[in-house]
Amino acid sequence: MINGNTEIIAHIGYPTHTFKSPMIYNPYFEQAGINAVVVPMGCQVPDYPAFLKAVFSLTNIRGALITMPHKVTTVGLLDEVTPTVKVAGACNAVKRRADGKLVGDMFDGEGFVRGVQRKGLNLKGKRVLVVGSGGVGSAIAASLAAAGIAAICLYDVNTASATALGQRLQQNYPAIAVTTGSNDPQGFDLVVNATPMGMNEGDPLPLDVSRLSANTFVGEVVMRTEMTAFLLAAKAQGCAVQVGSDMLFEQIPAYLEYFDLPTTTAEVLRSVARLSY
Amino acid sequence: MINGNTEIIAHIGYPTHTFKSPMIYNPYFEQAGINAVVVPMGCQVPDYPAFLKAVFSLTNIRGALITMPHKVTTVGLLDEVTPTVKVAGACNAVKRRADGKLVGDMFDGEGFVRGVQRKGLNLKGKRVLVVGSGGVGSAIAASLAAAGIAAICLYDVNTASATALGQRLQQNYPAIAVTTGSNDPQGFDLVVNATPMGMNEGDPLPLDVSRLSANTFVGEVVMRTEMTAFLLAAKAQGCAVQVGSDMLFEQIPAYLEYFDLPTTTAEVLRSVARLSY
Repeated sequence: MINGNTEIIAHIGYPTHTFKSPMIYNPYFEQAGINAVVVPMGCQVPDYPAFLKAVFSLTNIRGALITMPHKVTTVGLLDEVTPTVKVAGACNAVKRRADGKLVGDMFDGEGFVRGVQRKGLNLKGKRVLVVGSGGVGSAIAASLAAAGIAAICLYDVNTASATALGQRLQQNYPAIAVTTGSNDPQGFDLVVNATPMGMNEGDPLPLDVSRLSANTFVGEVVMRTEMTAFLLAAKAQGCAVQVGSDMLFEQIPAYLEYFDLPTTTAEVLRSVARLSY
Repeated sequence: MINGNTEIIAHIGYPTHTFKSPMIYNPYFEQAGINAVVVPMGCQVPDYPAFLKAVFSLTNIRGALITMPHKVTTVGLLDEVTPTVKVAGACNAVKRRADGKLVGDMFDGEGFVRGVQRKGLNLKGKRVLVVGSGGVGSAIAASLAAAGIAAICLYDVNTASATALGQRLQQNYPAIAVTTGSNDPQGFDLVVNATPMGMNEGDPLPLDVSRLSANTFVGEVVMRTEMTAFLLAAKAQGCAVQVGSDMLFEQIPAYLEYFDLPTTTAEVLRSVARLSY
Protein backbone atom coordinates (compact mmCIF):
# COMPACT_ATOMS: atom_id res chain seq x y z
CA MET A 1 0.00 0.00 0.00
CA ILE A 2 1.71 3.15 -1.26
CA ASN A 3 1.71 6.05 1.21
CA GLY A 4 3.71 9.18 2.00
CA ASN A 5 6.59 7.14 3.42
CA THR A 6 6.98 4.90 0.37
CA GLU A 7 10.37 4.88 -1.32
CA ILE A 8 10.65 4.71 -5.08
CA ILE A 9 12.73 2.39 -7.22
CA ALA A 10 12.62 3.91 -10.69
CA HIS A 11 12.49 1.29 -13.43
CA ILE A 12 13.71 3.33 -16.40
CA GLY A 13 13.61 2.22 -20.03
CA TYR A 14 11.63 2.40 -23.24
CA PRO A 15 9.31 0.91 -24.22
CA THR A 16 7.95 -0.17 -20.85
CA HIS A 17 5.32 -2.67 -22.00
CA THR A 18 7.53 -5.74 -21.56
CA PHE A 19 8.83 -4.76 -18.09
CA LYS A 20 8.74 -7.69 -15.68
CA SER A 21 10.40 -6.26 -12.57
CA PRO A 22 7.33 -4.48 -11.09
CA MET A 23 5.49 -7.82 -10.98
CA ILE A 24 8.37 -9.49 -9.15
CA TYR A 25 9.63 -6.79 -6.76
CA ASN A 26 6.30 -5.28 -5.74
CA PRO A 27 4.62 -8.52 -4.62
CA TYR A 28 7.81 -9.32 -2.69
CA PHE A 29 7.84 -5.87 -1.04
CA GLU A 30 4.21 -6.34 -0.06
CA GLN A 31 4.80 -9.81 1.36
CA ALA A 32 7.95 -8.72 3.22
CA GLY A 33 6.43 -5.48 4.57
CA ILE A 34 8.96 -3.28 2.74
CA ASN A 35 7.57 0.20 2.02
CA ALA A 36 9.04 0.59 -1.46
CA VAL A 37 7.64 0.38 -4.97
CA VAL A 38 9.13 -0.30 -8.38
CA VAL A 39 7.62 2.24 -10.77
CA PRO A 40 7.94 1.81 -14.56
CA MET A 41 9.17 5.04 -16.11
CA GLY A 42 9.16 5.24 -19.88
CA CYS A 43 12.05 7.45 -20.93
CA GLN A 44 13.32 7.98 -24.46
CA VAL A 45 16.97 8.44 -25.40
CA PRO A 46 17.09 12.26 -25.74
CA ASP A 47 15.36 12.74 -22.36
CA TYR A 48 17.36 10.21 -20.38
CA PRO A 49 20.42 12.12 -19.09
CA ALA A 50 18.29 14.95 -17.63
CA PHE A 51 15.69 12.55 -16.28
CA LEU A 52 18.23 10.33 -14.51
CA LYS A 53 19.71 13.40 -12.78
CA ALA A 54 16.27 14.75 -11.87
CA VAL A 55 14.84 11.52 -10.51
CA PHE A 56 17.85 11.21 -8.19
CA SER A 57 17.08 14.65 -6.78
CA LEU A 58 13.97 13.14 -5.15
CA THR A 59 14.09 12.71 -1.39
CA ASN A 60 12.40 9.30 -1.51
CA ILE A 61 14.35 7.66 -4.33
CA ARG A 62 15.96 4.39 -3.24
CA GLY A 63 17.54 3.45 -6.54
CA ALA A 64 16.99 2.80 -10.21
CA LEU A 65 16.75 -0.30 -12.38
CA ILE A 66 18.06 0.67 -15.80
CA THR A 67 17.06 -1.26 -18.88
CA MET A 68 16.98 -0.92 -22.68
CA PRO A 69 17.99 1.37 -24.34
CA HIS A 70 19.89 3.11 -21.53
CA LYS A 71 22.30 0.52 -20.06
CA VAL A 72 25.32 1.66 -22.11
CA THR A 73 24.62 5.41 -21.85
CA THR A 74 24.33 5.17 -18.07
CA VAL A 75 28.04 4.29 -17.71
CA GLY A 76 29.01 7.81 -18.76
CA LEU A 77 26.45 9.59 -16.57
CA LEU A 78 27.64 8.41 -13.16
CA ASP A 79 30.29 9.56 -10.69
CA GLU A 80 31.62 6.07 -10.05
CA VAL A 81 31.14 2.60 -11.52
CA THR A 82 32.42 -0.85 -10.60
CA PRO A 83 34.94 -2.89 -12.61
CA THR A 84 31.98 -5.08 -13.59
CA VAL A 85 30.39 -2.05 -15.27
CA LYS A 86 33.68 -1.22 -16.98
CA VAL A 87 34.09 -4.71 -18.42
CA ALA A 88 30.42 -5.11 -19.32
CA GLY A 89 30.36 -1.62 -20.82
CA ALA A 90 26.90 -1.27 -19.37
CA CYS A 91 25.14 -0.47 -16.10
CA ASN A 92 21.72 -1.59 -14.89
CA ALA A 93 21.67 -0.44 -11.25
CA VAL A 94 22.06 3.12 -9.98
CA LYS A 95 21.92 4.56 -6.49
CA ARG A 96 22.79 7.80 -4.75
CA ARG A 97 25.38 7.39 -2.06
CA ALA A 98 25.21 9.28 1.25
CA ASP A 99 27.82 11.71 -0.11
CA GLY A 100 25.43 12.57 -2.96
CA LYS A 101 27.44 10.78 -5.65
CA LEU A 102 25.59 8.72 -8.25
CA VAL A 103 27.11 5.26 -8.50
CA GLY A 104 26.31 2.23 -10.62
CA ASP A 105 26.76 -1.49 -10.85
CA MET A 106 25.73 -4.21 -13.31
CA PHE A 107 23.82 -7.28 -12.16
CA ASP A 108 22.83 -9.14 -15.35
CA GLY A 109 25.96 -11.26 -15.11
CA GLU A 110 25.79 -11.36 -11.31
CA GLY A 111 22.43 -13.11 -11.64
CA PHE A 112 24.04 -15.75 -13.83
CA VAL A 113 26.99 -16.16 -11.45
CA ARG A 114 24.87 -16.40 -8.30
CA GLY A 115 22.72 -19.00 -10.00
CA VAL A 116 25.56 -21.35 -10.88
CA GLN A 117 27.22 -20.79 -7.49
CA ARG A 118 24.02 -21.69 -5.68
CA LYS A 119 23.87 -24.84 -7.81
CA GLY A 120 27.22 -25.84 -6.33
CA LEU A 121 29.75 -24.60 -8.87
CA ASN A 122 32.69 -22.88 -7.17
CA LEU A 123 34.07 -20.50 -9.82
CA LYS A 124 37.46 -19.88 -8.20
CA GLY A 125 40.21 -20.97 -10.60
CA LYS A 126 37.78 -22.33 -13.19
CA ARG A 127 38.05 -22.34 -17.00
CA VAL A 128 35.05 -20.81 -18.78
CA LEU A 129 33.75 -20.48 -22.34
CA VAL A 130 31.31 -17.64 -23.07
CA VAL A 131 29.73 -17.82 -26.53
CA GLY A 132 28.34 -14.41 -27.50
CA SER A 133 30.06 -11.10 -26.68
CA GLY A 134 27.09 -8.75 -26.91
CA GLY A 135 25.48 -7.01 -23.94
CA VAL A 136 24.55 -10.08 -21.97
CA GLY A 137 27.72 -12.01 -22.83
CA SER A 138 29.85 -9.04 -21.74
CA ALA A 139 27.93 -8.77 -18.49
CA ILE A 140 28.35 -12.48 -17.74
CA ALA A 141 32.06 -12.41 -18.58
CA ALA A 142 32.50 -9.38 -16.30
CA SER A 143 30.78 -11.06 -13.36
CA LEU A 144 32.62 -14.34 -13.92
CA ALA A 145 35.88 -12.41 -13.81
CA ALA A 146 34.84 -10.75 -10.55
CA ALA A 147 34.00 -14.20 -9.15
CA GLY A 148 37.59 -15.42 -9.49
CA ILE A 149 37.82 -17.59 -12.62
CA ALA A 150 41.32 -18.46 -13.91
CA ALA A 151 40.70 -18.50 -17.64
CA ILE A 152 38.05 -17.40 -20.11
CA CYS A 153 37.53 -17.99 -23.80
CA LEU A 154 35.31 -15.53 -25.66
CA TYR A 155 33.62 -16.30 -28.95
CA ASP A 156 31.37 -14.22 -31.16
CA VAL A 157 30.55 -14.39 -34.89
CA ASN A 158 31.50 -10.71 -34.72
CA THR A 159 35.18 -11.26 -33.90
CA ALA A 160 35.80 -7.56 -33.16
CA SER A 161 33.18 -7.73 -30.41
CA ALA A 162 34.90 -10.71 -28.73
CA THR A 163 38.31 -9.05 -29.09
CA ALA A 164 37.11 -5.80 -27.53
CA LEU A 165 35.52 -7.64 -24.61
CA GLY A 166 38.73 -9.58 -24.13
CA GLN A 167 40.70 -6.34 -23.96
CA ARG A 168 38.37 -4.81 -21.38
CA LEU A 169 38.60 -7.98 -19.31
CA GLN A 170 42.38 -8.10 -19.50
CA GLN A 171 42.71 -4.43 -18.50
CA ASN A 172 40.60 -4.91 -15.40
CA TYR A 173 41.67 -8.48 -14.53
CA PRO A 174 45.28 -8.94 -15.74
CA ALA A 175 45.62 -12.28 -13.88
CA ILE A 176 42.92 -14.01 -15.92
CA ALA A 177 44.01 -15.92 -19.04
CA VAL A 178 41.89 -14.53 -21.87
CA THR A 179 41.59 -16.17 -25.27
CA THR A 180 39.21 -15.55 -28.14
CA GLY A 181 38.04 -17.10 -31.39
CA SER A 182 36.89 -20.65 -30.57
CA ASN A 183 33.54 -22.02 -29.47
CA ASP A 184 34.81 -25.54 -28.89
CA PRO A 185 33.46 -26.47 -25.42
CA GLN A 186 35.96 -29.23 -24.73
CA GLY A 187 37.98 -28.84 -21.56
CA PHE A 188 35.93 -26.10 -19.88
CA ASP A 189 34.37 -26.22 -16.42
CA LEU A 190 31.55 -23.87 -17.45
CA VAL A 191 30.11 -23.15 -20.88
CA VAL A 192 27.57 -20.35 -21.45
CA ASN A 193 25.31 -19.60 -24.37
CA ALA A 194 25.05 -15.81 -24.34
CA THR A 195 23.86 -15.55 -27.95
CA PRO A 196 20.23 -15.14 -29.02
CA MET A 197 20.36 -18.58 -30.65
CA GLY A 198 17.36 -20.48 -29.35
CA MET A 199 15.01 -17.51 -29.33
CA ASN A 200 13.47 -18.68 -32.60
CA GLU A 201 12.20 -22.14 -33.46
CA GLY A 202 14.77 -24.02 -35.55
CA ASP A 203 17.80 -21.89 -34.56
CA PRO A 204 21.06 -23.83 -34.84
CA LEU A 205 22.75 -24.65 -31.53
CA PRO A 206 25.41 -22.11 -30.47
CA LEU A 207 28.19 -24.70 -30.30
CA ASP A 208 29.00 -28.35 -30.95
CA VAL A 209 27.26 -30.07 -28.05
CA SER A 210 28.80 -33.45 -28.89
CA ARG A 211 32.11 -32.06 -27.63
CA LEU A 212 30.71 -31.30 -24.16
CA SER A 213 31.82 -33.61 -21.39
CA ALA A 214 29.49 -34.57 -18.56
CA ASN A 215 31.47 -32.66 -15.92
CA THR A 216 31.04 -29.34 -17.73
CA PHE A 217 28.35 -27.07 -16.26
CA VAL A 218 26.21 -25.48 -19.00
CA GLY A 219 24.32 -22.19 -18.70
CA GLU A 220 21.85 -20.45 -20.96
CA VAL A 221 20.50 -16.89 -21.30
CA VAL A 222 17.60 -17.58 -23.69
CA MET A 223 14.25 -17.49 -21.84
CA ARG A 224 11.89 -18.54 -24.62
CA THR A 225 11.30 -21.84 -22.84
CA GLU A 226 12.81 -23.14 -19.62
CA MET A 227 14.65 -26.02 -21.32
CA THR A 228 15.96 -24.75 -24.65
CA ALA A 229 17.17 -27.12 -27.35
CA PHE A 230 20.72 -26.29 -26.26
CA LEU A 231 20.06 -27.16 -22.61
CA LEU A 232 18.23 -30.36 -23.59
CA ALA A 233 21.21 -31.41 -25.68
CA ALA A 234 23.66 -30.55 -22.88
CA LYS A 235 21.59 -32.49 -20.38
CA ALA A 236 21.61 -35.47 -22.75
CA GLN A 237 25.41 -35.28 -22.58
CA GLY A 238 25.10 -35.56 -18.79
CA CYS A 239 25.82 -31.90 -18.00
CA ALA A 240 24.34 -29.94 -15.09
CA VAL A 241 22.49 -26.91 -16.49
CA GLN A 242 21.10 -23.49 -15.57
CA VAL A 243 18.01 -22.09 -17.33
CA GLY A 244 17.78 -18.54 -18.69
CA SER A 245 15.24 -17.18 -16.25
CA ASP A 246 17.53 -18.01 -13.32
CA MET A 247 19.67 -15.05 -14.40
CA LEU A 248 16.63 -12.79 -13.99
CA PHE A 249 15.53 -14.06 -10.58
CA GLU A 250 19.03 -14.57 -9.13
CA GLN A 251 20.03 -10.97 -9.85
CA ILE A 252 17.19 -9.50 -7.81
CA PRO A 253 18.76 -10.35 -4.43
CA ALA A 254 21.89 -8.56 -5.69
CA TYR A 255 19.80 -5.48 -6.44
CA LEU A 256 18.07 -5.66 -3.04
CA GLU A 257 21.45 -5.79 -1.27
CA TYR A 258 22.74 -2.90 -3.41
CA PHE A 259 19.71 -0.79 -2.41
CA ASP A 260 20.12 -1.78 1.26
CA LEU A 261 16.76 -3.52 1.35
CA PRO A 262 16.01 -6.82 3.10
CA THR A 263 17.03 -9.55 0.69
CA THR A 264 15.54 -12.91 -0.19
CA THR A 265 16.10 -15.90 -2.46
CA ALA A 266 15.30 -16.48 -6.11
CA GLU A 267 12.87 -19.20 -5.00
CA VAL A 268 10.83 -16.78 -2.87
CA LEU A 269 10.82 -14.28 -5.74
CA ARG A 270 9.58 -16.91 -8.18
CA SER A 271 6.82 -17.88 -5.76
CA VAL A 272 5.49 -14.32 -5.28
CA ALA A 273 5.97 -13.09 -8.88
CA ARG A 274 2.81 -12.39 -10.88
CA LEU A 275 4.21 -12.49 -14.37
CA SER A 276 1.07 -13.15 -16.40
CA TYR A 277 -0.80 -9.98 -17.36
CA MET B 1 -1.05 -4.35 -9.83
CA ILE B 2 1.68 -2.20 -11.38
CA ASN B 3 3.03 -3.50 -14.69
CA GLY B 4 4.73 -2.20 -17.83
CA ASN B 5 1.53 -0.55 -19.04
CA THR B 6 0.87 1.39 -15.84
CA GLU B 7 0.62 5.15 -16.14
CA ILE B 8 2.09 7.42 -13.47
CA ILE B 9 0.46 10.28 -11.64
CA ALA B 10 3.34 12.06 -9.92
CA HIS B 11 2.40 13.40 -6.48
CA ILE B 12 5.09 16.04 -6.00
CA GLY B 13 5.81 17.88 -2.75
CA TYR B 14 8.00 17.93 0.32
CA PRO B 15 7.85 16.50 2.87
CA THR B 16 5.83 13.53 1.64
CA HIS B 17 5.00 11.90 4.96
CA THR B 18 1.57 13.49 5.31
CA PHE B 19 0.46 12.74 1.72
CA LYS B 20 -3.06 11.33 1.62
CA SER B 21 -3.74 11.08 -2.11
CA PRO B 22 -2.00 7.72 -2.75
CA MET B 23 -4.33 6.07 -0.22
CA ILE B 24 -7.41 7.51 -1.92
CA TYR B 25 -6.58 7.32 -5.63
CA ASN B 26 -4.77 3.97 -5.70
CA PRO B 27 -7.52 1.92 -4.01
CA TYR B 28 -9.99 3.59 -6.38
CA PHE B 29 -7.83 2.75 -9.43
CA GLU B 30 -7.59 -0.84 -8.25
CA GLN B 31 -11.34 -1.12 -7.67
CA ALA B 32 -12.17 0.55 -11.00
CA GLY B 33 -9.60 -1.43 -13.02
CA ILE B 34 -7.68 1.70 -14.03
CA ASN B 35 -4.01 0.95 -14.77
CA ALA B 36 -2.55 4.06 -13.14
CA VAL B 37 -0.74 4.76 -9.89
CA VAL B 38 -0.22 7.84 -7.74
CA VAL B 39 3.44 7.88 -6.71
CA PRO B 40 4.68 10.17 -3.92
CA MET B 41 7.75 12.07 -5.11
CA GLY B 42 9.60 14.10 -2.49
CA CYS B 43 11.09 17.11 -4.23
CA GLN B 44 12.74 20.07 -2.56
CA VAL B 45 12.49 23.67 -3.78
CA PRO B 46 15.82 23.99 -5.64
CA ASP B 47 15.23 20.74 -7.54
CA TYR B 48 11.61 21.32 -8.50
CA PRO B 49 11.74 23.23 -11.82
CA ALA B 50 14.09 20.68 -13.42
CA PHE B 51 12.23 17.75 -11.92
CA LEU B 52 8.82 18.92 -13.15
CA LYS B 53 10.17 19.26 -16.68
CA ALA B 54 11.94 15.89 -16.52
CA VAL B 55 9.01 13.93 -15.12
CA PHE B 56 6.83 15.20 -17.96
CA SER B 57 9.33 13.84 -20.47
CA LEU B 58 8.25 10.33 -19.44
CA THR B 59 6.17 8.41 -21.96
CA ASN B 60 3.83 7.01 -19.30
CA ILE B 61 3.13 10.15 -17.26
CA ARG B 62 -0.59 10.88 -17.00
CA GLY B 63 -0.38 14.00 -14.84
CA ALA B 64 0.89 15.49 -11.60
CA LEU B 65 -0.68 16.41 -8.29
CA ILE B 66 1.30 19.35 -6.95
CA THR B 67 1.36 20.14 -3.27
CA MET B 68 3.36 22.13 -0.71
CA PRO B 69 5.74 23.88 -1.19
CA HIS B 70 5.39 23.99 -5.00
CA LYS B 71 1.84 25.23 -5.72
CA VAL B 72 2.85 28.86 -6.21
CA THR B 73 6.09 28.18 -8.11
CA THR B 74 4.27 25.91 -10.55
CA VAL B 75 2.28 28.83 -12.00
CA GLY B 76 5.44 30.26 -13.55
CA LEU B 77 6.70 26.94 -14.94
CA LEU B 78 3.81 26.11 -17.28
CA ASP B 79 2.90 27.04 -20.84
CA GLU B 80 -0.73 27.78 -20.02
CA VAL B 81 -2.84 28.13 -16.89
CA THR B 82 -6.56 28.67 -16.24
CA PRO B 83 -8.13 31.86 -14.82
CA THR B 84 -8.64 29.87 -11.61
CA VAL B 85 -4.87 29.45 -11.35
CA LYS B 86 -4.35 33.14 -12.04
CA VAL B 87 -6.76 34.24 -9.31
CA ALA B 88 -5.61 31.61 -6.83
CA GLY B 89 -1.99 32.40 -7.59
CA ALA B 90 -1.32 28.71 -7.30
CA CYS B 91 -1.60 25.48 -9.27
CA ASN B 92 -2.08 21.92 -8.01
CA ALA B 93 -2.75 19.95 -11.22
CA VAL B 94 -0.43 19.65 -14.21
CA LYS B 95 -0.74 17.66 -17.41
CA ARG B 96 0.95 17.50 -20.80
CA ARG B 97 -1.38 18.25 -23.66
CA ALA B 98 -1.23 16.37 -26.98
CA ASP B 99 0.67 19.34 -28.46
CA GLY B 100 3.38 18.84 -25.82
CA LYS B 101 2.49 21.96 -23.83
CA LEU B 102 2.47 21.75 -20.04
CA VAL B 103 -0.79 23.14 -18.67
CA GLY B 104 -2.16 23.59 -15.18
CA ASP B 105 -5.32 24.03 -13.19
CA MET B 106 -6.19 24.45 -9.52
CA PHE B 107 -8.73 22.19 -7.83
CA ASP B 108 -8.56 23.03 -4.10
CA GLY B 109 -11.37 25.53 -4.53
CA GLU B 110 -13.13 23.37 -7.09
CA GLY B 111 -13.46 20.68 -4.43
CA PHE B 112 -15.15 23.16 -2.13
CA VAL B 113 -17.45 24.40 -4.91
CA ARG B 114 -18.45 20.92 -6.10
CA GLY B 115 -19.24 19.99 -2.52
CA VAL B 116 -21.66 22.83 -1.88
CA GLN B 117 -23.21 22.44 -5.32
CA ARG B 118 -23.84 18.75 -4.72
CA LYS B 119 -25.47 19.72 -1.43
CA GLY B 120 -28.00 21.77 -3.41
CA LEU B 121 -26.53 25.26 -3.40
CA ASN B 122 -26.72 26.86 -6.84
CA LEU B 123 -23.93 29.47 -6.84
CA LYS B 124 -25.15 31.49 -9.84
CA GLY B 125 -25.79 35.06 -8.73
CA LYS B 126 -25.02 34.38 -5.09
CA ARG B 127 -23.35 36.64 -2.48
CA VAL B 128 -20.39 35.06 -0.72
CA LEU B 129 -18.09 35.85 2.23
CA VAL B 130 -14.67 34.21 2.28
CA VAL B 131 -12.76 34.70 5.54
CA GLY B 132 -9.06 34.10 4.99
CA SER B 133 -7.18 35.14 1.85
CA GLY B 134 -4.21 32.78 2.05
CA GLY B 135 -3.63 29.86 -0.30
CA VAL B 136 -6.84 27.99 0.38
CA GLY B 137 -9.02 31.11 0.62
CA SER B 138 -7.65 32.37 -2.69
CA ALA B 139 -8.32 29.01 -4.30
CA ILE B 140 -11.89 28.92 -3.03
CA ALA B 141 -12.55 32.52 -4.10
CA ALA B 142 -11.16 31.70 -7.56
CA SER B 143 -13.41 28.67 -7.99
CA LEU B 144 -16.46 30.48 -6.63
CA ALA B 145 -15.84 33.21 -9.21
CA ALA B 146 -15.63 30.62 -11.97
CA ALA B 147 -18.92 29.12 -10.72
CA GLY B 148 -20.84 32.33 -11.39
CA ILE B 149 -21.31 34.17 -8.08
CA ALA B 150 -22.50 37.80 -8.23
CA ALA B 151 -20.63 39.27 -5.25
CA ILE B 152 -17.79 38.34 -2.93
CA CYS B 153 -16.47 39.86 0.26
CA LEU B 154 -12.90 39.00 1.23
CA TYR B 155 -11.53 39.30 4.73
CA ASP B 156 -8.12 38.60 6.17
CA VAL B 157 -6.32 39.87 9.26
CA ASN B 158 -3.57 40.63 6.75
CA THR B 159 -5.52 43.29 4.83
CA ALA B 160 -2.93 43.47 2.03
CA SER B 161 -3.57 39.80 1.32
CA ALA B 162 -7.34 40.34 0.97
CA THR B 163 -6.79 43.43 -1.19
CA ALA B 164 -4.41 41.63 -3.52
CA LEU B 165 -6.81 38.69 -3.91
CA GLY B 166 -9.62 41.16 -4.62
CA GLN B 167 -7.55 42.76 -7.38
CA ARG B 168 -6.74 39.41 -9.01
CA LEU B 169 -10.43 38.49 -8.87
CA GLN B 170 -11.55 41.77 -10.35
CA GLN B 171 -9.02 41.58 -13.18
CA ASN B 172 -10.21 38.14 -14.22
CA TYR B 173 -13.92 38.54 -13.37
CA PRO B 174 -14.83 42.25 -13.84
CA ALA B 175 -18.58 41.51 -13.51
CA ILE B 176 -18.29 40.28 -9.91
CA ALA B 177 -18.80 42.85 -7.13
CA VAL B 178 -15.72 42.56 -4.93
CA THR B 179 -15.45 44.10 -1.47
CA THR B 180 -12.91 43.59 1.28
CA GLY B 181 -12.40 44.35 4.96
CA SER B 182 -15.40 42.89 6.81
CA ASN B 183 -16.05 39.44 8.25
CA ASP B 184 -19.66 40.18 9.20
CA PRO B 185 -21.61 37.18 7.80
CA GLN B 186 -25.00 38.91 7.74
CA GLY B 187 -26.71 38.92 4.34
CA PHE B 188 -24.56 36.32 2.56
CA ASP B 189 -25.79 33.17 0.85
CA LEU B 190 -22.53 31.36 1.56
CA VAL B 191 -19.91 31.96 4.25
CA VAL B 192 -16.57 30.15 4.25
CA ASN B 193 -13.94 29.79 6.92
CA ALA B 194 -10.70 29.60 4.96
CA THR B 195 -8.48 30.51 7.92
CA PRO B 196 -6.56 28.02 10.08
CA MET B 197 -8.74 28.96 13.06
CA GLY B 198 -10.05 25.72 14.49
CA MET B 199 -6.87 23.74 13.88
CA ASN B 200 -5.91 24.15 17.53
CA GLU B 201 -8.03 23.50 20.59
CA GLY B 202 -9.42 26.76 21.99
CA ASP B 203 -8.97 28.82 18.80
CA PRO B 204 -11.44 31.71 18.59
CA LEU B 205 -14.14 31.37 15.92
CA PRO B 206 -13.24 33.07 12.61
CA LEU B 207 -16.34 35.34 12.67
CA ASP B 208 -19.35 36.34 14.76
CA VAL B 209 -21.60 33.29 14.38
CA SER B 210 -24.51 35.00 16.14
CA ARG B 211 -24.93 37.17 13.03
CA LEU B 212 -25.42 34.11 10.75
CA SER B 213 -28.96 33.59 9.52
CA ALA B 214 -30.38 30.09 9.06
CA ASN B 215 -30.57 30.37 5.28
CA THR B 216 -26.82 31.00 4.94
CA PHE B 217 -24.81 27.99 3.85
CA VAL B 218 -21.58 27.63 5.88
CA GLY B 219 -18.40 25.92 4.72
CA GLU B 220 -15.17 25.04 6.47
CA VAL B 221 -11.65 24.13 5.39
CA VAL B 222 -10.28 22.92 8.74
CA MET B 223 -10.06 19.12 8.88
CA ARG B 224 -8.95 18.59 12.47
CA THR B 225 -12.36 17.10 13.24
CA GLU B 226 -15.36 16.64 10.98
CA MET B 227 -17.55 19.09 12.94
CA THR B 228 -15.33 21.96 14.06
CA ALA B 229 -16.46 24.40 16.74
CA PHE B 230 -17.30 26.84 13.95
CA LEU B 231 -19.51 24.33 12.11
CA LEU B 232 -21.22 23.26 15.33
CA ALA B 233 -22.03 26.90 16.11
CA ALA B 234 -23.30 27.49 12.56
CA LYS B 235 -25.45 24.38 12.72
CA ALA B 236 -26.88 25.62 16.03
CA GLN B 237 -27.92 28.76 14.13
CA GLY B 238 -29.80 26.48 11.71
CA CYS B 239 -27.30 26.70 8.83
CA ALA B 240 -26.55 23.93 6.35
CA VAL B 241 -22.83 23.13 6.51
CA GLN B 242 -19.97 21.50 4.62
CA VAL B 243 -17.09 19.85 6.47
CA GLY B 244 -13.42 20.42 5.63
CA SER B 245 -12.65 16.98 4.24
CA ASP B 246 -15.36 17.35 1.59
CA MET B 247 -13.01 19.78 -0.18
CA LEU B 248 -10.41 17.00 -0.36
CA PHE B 249 -12.70 14.26 -1.63
CA GLU B 250 -14.81 16.45 -3.94
CA GLN B 251 -11.75 17.70 -5.82
CA ILE B 252 -10.60 14.23 -6.80
CA PRO B 253 -13.31 13.74 -9.46
CA ALA B 254 -12.16 17.09 -10.90
CA TYR B 255 -8.60 15.75 -11.11
CA LEU B 256 -9.77 12.48 -12.67
CA GLU B 257 -11.67 14.38 -15.37
CA TYR B 258 -8.67 16.63 -15.96
CA PHE B 259 -6.44 13.58 -16.47
CA ASP B 260 -9.05 11.94 -18.76
CA LEU B 261 -9.56 9.03 -16.39
CA PRO B 262 -12.92 7.42 -15.53
CA THR B 263 -14.43 9.55 -12.79
CA THR B 264 -16.44 8.74 -9.68
CA THR B 265 -18.09 10.39 -6.69
CA ALA B 266 -16.69 11.65 -3.41
CA GLU B 267 -18.76 8.97 -1.67
CA VAL B 268 -17.09 6.14 -3.58
CA LEU B 269 -13.69 7.69 -2.88
CA ARG B 270 -14.44 7.92 0.84
CA SER B 271 -15.55 4.30 0.86
CA VAL B 272 -12.37 2.95 -0.81
CA ALA B 273 -9.86 5.29 0.90
CA ARG B 274 -7.43 3.69 3.36
CA LEU B 275 -6.36 6.73 5.30
CA SER B 276 -5.07 5.16 8.51
CA TYR B 277 -1.43 4.15 8.33
